Amino acid sequence: MKILVINCGSSSLKYQLINMENEECLALGLVERIGIEGSILTQKASGEKYIIEESMKDHTDAIRLVLGALVDPKHGVIKELSEIDAVGHRIVHGGEKYASSVVVNDEVMKNLKECSKLAPLHNPANIIGINACKALMPNTPMVTVFDTAFHQTMPEVAYVYPLPYELYTNNGVRKYGFHGTSHKFVSEKAAEMMGKDIKDLKLITCHLGNGASISAIKNGKSIETSMGFTPLEGIAMGTRCGSIDPAIIVYIMQELNLTIDEVNDLMNKKSGVLGISGVSSDFRDIEKAAWEDGNHRAQLALDIFSYKVKKFIGSYAAVMGGVDAIIFTAGLGENSPETREDVCNGLEFLGAVLDKSKNKVRGKAVELNTVDSKTKIFVIPTNEELVIARDTQALIK
Amino acid sequence: MKILVINCGSSSLKYQLINMENEECLALGLVERIGIEGSILTQKASGEKYIIEESMKDHTDAIRLVLGALVDPKHGVIKELSEIDAVGHRIVHGGEKYASSVVVNDEVMKNLKECSKLAPLHNPANIIGINACKALMPNTPMVTVFDTAFHQTMPEVAYVYPLPYELYTNNGVRKYGFHGTSHKFVSEKAAEMMGKDIKDLKLITCHLGNGASISAIKNGKSIETSMGFTPLEGIAMGTRCGSIDPAIIVYIMQELNLTIDEVNDLMNKKSGVLGISGVSSDFRDIEKAAWEDGNHRAQLALDIFSYKVKKFIGSYAAVMGGVDAIIFTAGLGENSPETREDVCNGLEFLGAVLDKSKNKVRGKAVELNTVDSKTKIFVIPTNEELVIARDTQALIK
Repeated sequence: MKILVINCGSSSLKYQLINMENEECLALGLVERIGIEGSILTQKASGEKYIIEESMKDHTDAIRLVLGALVDPKHGVIKELSEIDAVGHRIVHGGEKYASSVVVNDEVMKNLKECSKLAPLHNPANIIGINACKALMPNTPMVTVFDTAFHQTMPEVAYVYPLPYELYTNNGVRKYGFHGTSHKFVSEKAAEMMGKDIKDLKLITCHLGNGASISAIKNGKSIETSMGFTPLEGIAMGTRCGSIDPAIIVYIMQELNLTIDEVNDLMNKKSGVLGISGVSSDFRDIEKAAWEDGNHRAQLALDIFSYKVKKFIGSYAAVMGGVDAIIFTAGLGENSPETREDVCNGLEFLGAVLDKSKNKVRGKAVELNTVDSKTKIFVIPTNEELVIARDTQALIK
Repeated sequence: MKILVINCGSSSLKYQLINMENEECLALGLVERIGIEGSILTQKASGEKYIIEESMKDHTDAIRLVLGALVDPKHGVIKELSEIDAVGHRIVHGGEKYASSVVVNDEVMKNLKECSKLAPLHNPANIIGINACKALMPNTPMVTVFDTAFHQTMPEVAYVYPLPYELYTNNGVRKYGFHGTSHKFVSEKAAEMMGKDIKDLKLITCHLGNGASISAIKNGKSIETSMGFTPLEGIAMGTRCGSIDPAIIVYIMQELNLTIDEVNDLMNKKSGVLGISGVSSDFRDIEKAAWEDGNHRAQLALDIFSYKVKKFIGSYAAVMGGVDAIIFTAGLGENSPETREDVCNGLEFLGAVLDKSKNKVRGKAVELNTVDSKTKIFVIPTNEELVIARDTQALIK
């Protein structure tokens, strides 16, 4: 069985075609600048890169080109579209309706539209992607896999905000959490590597990328996570501020005469490690500035990032009454031994002792703790596309 | 030596006259509704209550009545004002200028005015209080004791927000922290009760009142605290929301068409346990509704409050690399064994084991942990007025 995984952003689209017999990725690609001048599709398959530079006025155009690239006689990986048994769509927001993946039908599409209010930048693009696929492959089953679903197991104490309760019941203002497929994937993989049933474990998963979130996973269920109503809450990220004193918004609107849209832009695009360092939102640039140029603000940005991760780990240990393993994943979590060392430094009281020699690793699933560390520490590369493909396969079987 | 301690709110004023020979409180009083119809002064001295209901158009009027009550031939405790050797003023915000208390002079007054921007509801009332005292007791030395001062030892990683750095350097947007005199007082008292030098201890102090904050105190210095740029940040409080996803502000402004002033009011006055429970901001009312009437939202409010305190304790243990003692203080911390039990439940992994029978105590300085608990747990009544009086005495000597 072959499954196409689609992840639509507002002006971009990522995809993978996965052979489920061996879970091998047959082709993966990225379409950028959809609806903007300079649209470009880049596909990697069989160790070869295939680039199409062609005007794409919308996501339907983009998906038409994606499907064309997949069946291209020279660069493609399948002969005809009928070889694609199903399409799995990554959806950012499933609200409270979806605690697991579902097969697309009219009701699902209606609910997705309702959830758009909660994710105005993401869900509309996701919906366009599904409709474009349905138009081009009308007989192929579609499945939606939600970024929020895994966190629907959180208890009320974790998801209700200390705001007027009516904001929850009438307006859906509650913690939803994101990166669910990633937290699920690496927590299950960690249990497997520990040779234990996930139902007996207390895990803290740190998804540290340009967007970053941390989850407490007890007995296989997400019971707490750092992102909230939106993906802005939690730790400092590439350009997002994470949690701050909410009164700061009031202050800067009044003091600097900013509109709420300007503050929103500032918090989402000009903050995080970019805002602190003034250098870049890319951790590689910041590390270079800190370590090679001795840039104080760059070093401070790195320190604050690790500090906030450490605080969440302590907090989530308290929520679960201890921790059996800490897992690092995503861009920075997989590829920055320095960040992992900074985060783990001082966590010995939790029984977590990092083995610095084992920690010199990038992008592999490895145990990083010392032999006698009571708490395990892992780096585990995430694979959200594979989770989407697996869910899709399970649902259409 | 006798010291008068003054704590001015926007329309209220609390005071204590303290005999520093034995640190005994000679008289304490509260003035309410200053500048509003129905002004009232209530003084307690020698076990007797003295009430003055008289129009007070401003803080100068109020302080005139306070001084009058203190020297009242029938109800007073001193013969003449010259017996007051100094006045200690509680000041909410000292900005970055003041890491300790200071004797009032023109420069201090100028700096206080500058800090008013950071605490527009509090500092102006504090300034009026100082000026009123200066007018009525021109030859008595005055000292200012700042709520923020104790937290000025926080490191950059704790006080810099992941926002554009210029908001810190140009506009003073950083974490300041509050309740400093209380955190200082109970941490020193805990060290004393442990028979140890505070310089060798890792302490977590939980000031849980209608306003609530938690601090990590390492080697006698505050290195982290839950309130931030303003006293809105941190855990849920009586009517304040504490930390929430900052994007919620954007959402409710746009979705509910609220102005930023309305959102500010909602976050400060309609949220916290009041917002969750819909019952009251007073924990006694909420406990009654939860336990006697089985009100679900009231129980949820209590659960969320304890849950957030627990999360901060875990977080601050991570910041310090462990914890030697957890200290509960202020209204709820001193008087709610149930809250203390809820918070400590599940913290055994930190070596903190509450002795439930010892925990049945209110308003006394007592050790609450089991004999073999590695981490100590204390309840310690706070006394901010005494810290202010001690600082005042030390400075004018």
